[in-house]
Amino acid sequence: MSSWEFGAETFQRRREKVQELMRRQGVDIFAVCPSANLYYLSGYSYPADERLLLLILPADSPPFLFVNCLYQTPALALESAVYWTDGEDPLGLLKKALAVRDLSCRTIALEGAMPALFTLPLSRLFPESRFVLGDSLTMPLRQCKEAQELDRIRWACRAADQALEELIAQGRYWLGKTEEDFSEALGRRLRKAGLDRYGSVVAAGDHGAAPHHTPGSRVIREGQGLLIDFWGAYGGYYTDCTRTFHVGKPSAEFERVHRIVLEAHLAAEAAARPGCTLGDVDAAARQHIERSGYGAYFTHRTGHGLGLDAHEGVSAAPGEETPIEAGMVFSIEPGIYLPGKFGVRIENLIAPRQGGAEVLHQYPRELILL
Amino acid sequence: MSSWEFGAETFQRRREKVQELMRRQGVDIFAVCPSANLYYLSGYSYPADERLLLLILPADSPPFLFVNCLYQTPALALESAVYWTDGEDPLGLLKKALAVRDLSCRTIALEGAMPALFTLPLSRLFPESRFVLGDSLTMPLRQCKEAQELDRIRWACRAADQALEELIAQGRYWLGKTEEDFSEALGRRLRKAGLDRYGSVVAAGDHGAAPHHTPGSRVIREGQGLLIDFWGAYGGYYTDCTRTFHVGKPSAEFERVHRIVLEAHLAAEAAARPGCTLGDVDAAARQHIERSGYGAYFTHRTGHGLGLDAHEGVSAAPGEETPIEAGMVFSIEPGIYLPGKFGVRIENLIAPRQGGAEVLHQYPRELILL
Repeated sequence: MSSWEFGAETFQRRREKVQELMRRQGVDIFAVCPSANLYYLSGYSYPADERLLLLILPADSPPFLFVNCLYQTPALALESAVYWTDGEDPLGLLKKALAVRDLSCRTIALEGAMPALFTLPLSRLFPESRFVLGDSLTMPLRQCKEAQELDRIRWACRAADQALEELIAQGRYWLGKTEEDFSEALGRRLRKAGLDRYGSVVAAGDHGAAPHHTPGSRVIREGQGLLIDFWGAYGGYYTDCTRTFHVGKPSAEFERVHRIVLEAHLAAEAAARPGCTLGDVDAAARQHIERSGYGAYFTHRTGHGLGLDAHEGVSAAPGEETPIEAGMVFSIEPGIYLPGKFGVRIENLIAPRQGGAEVLHQYPRELILL
Repeated sequence: MSSWEFGAETFQRRREKVQELMRRQGVDIFAVCPSANLYYLSGYSYPADERLLLLILPADSPPFLFVNCLYQTPALALESAVYWTDGEDPLGLLKKALAVRDLSCRTIALEGAMPALFTLPLSRLFPESRFVLGDSLTMPLRQCKEAQELDRIRWACRAADQALEELIAQGRYWLGKTEEDFSEALGRRLRKAGLDRYGSVVAAGDHGAAPHHTPGSRVIREGQGLLIDFWGAYGGYYTDCTRTFHVGKPSAEFERVHRIVLEAHLAAEAAARPGCTLGDVDAAARQHIERSGYGAYFTHRTGHGLGLDAHEGVSAAPGEETPIEAGMVFSIEPGIYLPGKFGVRIENLIAPRQGGAEVLHQYPRELILL
């Protein structure tokens, strides 16, 4: 086992912490379908499909995996599994498996990703039970990254920086190419670096004003802004980065907006320290943009947590009172979007620390011209 | 608009049919989150994320989209949208939007893909409402493909056949290459043909005995079985195909098992006609495999519906009483899996018709040796 791999004892330690939270919150059973939490608690990464697959974690006894025999694999960190077969009634079998183990089901926590396809039948199967969201059982843990988790995020961010650097070094090669071309080239480089689940927003010209633009056939031309937001996962853990470039000489307005966004970004970064709240981080960026007269054009939160999911846990959003702790990783990504003109966003991941945040991206934030 | 594109009237016609089913089933509101159904009913394909996004379709009045302003786009086929902004309470706003329109919420159907993250808060927001699964509103429609939908599936299947043909034509080039190499080459060809959401099971030797094996670093060698199951979507619609090859001369047992699976496949195909049930299709394949003495090694259903989702609607599974109708598209994919030795599966998509099914793949089913 390489030092990059989590050992069985890691998953067991995490499950024990979750069980402690379950007892404190009065939860009897935590039902975890395929999701980041399933991986976090067991090391298993199964596809989410129409076949019921659950990690059943009782508050006071060992977990078991409830799974179609199609997915039979050597047990990893779990002591037992209950298999079902196509054509059987999985919900009936699940109820029996819980009854045989004499497990209380008064309060059942459901993994947040569990689809209605299963949540509605489960609520009918256990009409007397109280159902709650399981996020409060895992997010307190996942929010603060273990050293090994942070290592993977660092690696993913370094790969992202290098990929962007290589592409931007090609400079005016990109004139006449499409958003899609750029997006595919970025994807290839991230894949080569060992990342998966990658994707990007590549937005030329006024496409940049749509924060979640899908890269399309628009050609990159002289005189346009070029917003690049891209992500991907290394060993399960995400990077997420945005830079906004300009092809050729920018207008005074573009330069001004880029400067304001960068100042807002740096103000948020300075506020991202233990002792402040995530709402303070948002306020730092937002107030700067508002004072500069662009408040109406900053249409989203300042940042989001991330790790095994590209967006997870609490956000740096207006009024968010969650205190910042060392070990958190979140994005700082203020933006200004001028419909019909352009958009500018600058995004880094940071890991707050006493005495200053660790900035996980090294790629320059200043305006670079192609 | 090319003939490949669905027009606004297509989505409106589908919504009206769903509304008719809603009135018949006593459903007041259908809440559709990002999913195949959202695309099917509106043409919108939004990413599923933590920001509440719903198509609200009332039984008796026009639909509206409830969406974060980040996803603001020109309305496509819908007359109205309600926007919310980061930092606001989307659930409170949704309740208000429903109240303002004076919509009854006694019975609310939820899209099957909706995560617990939203189903649990919704059930608390409407404590008096009855919640049901929305699948019974859309599956009767989606199950029988429109001509344009079938065209996309045909195109995807043709592209899949060609991709496999090109790779297998390389023959013994693949000796010494890994499962991953083959899988990536397949992915590249499917992408070039315009497919997305592609993937594959490439399983060499005894990996074939795990029906859902993930392609890995195992090297393809002389004397092994090679199971290739691959899929991808064209214009939103999936193909899905499996063939099992052998590198060099196969054992008598491999040849026998391949022949039995092929006979089971052909028996299921013959049973796939209007007038029979999907259970009959399963029974035809299963009985043949059981009579041949391998019943214990056919561990899954014989087939599944597909279209906008890779698996959708009812399955060709034991006891499934849904009658087969012209217009359905489903897979026929019996298999025999011998742990420690090899697995054989042969899968085609078919569209049943009076007088014989249309087989959507042309790639030969007979055993081909590399």
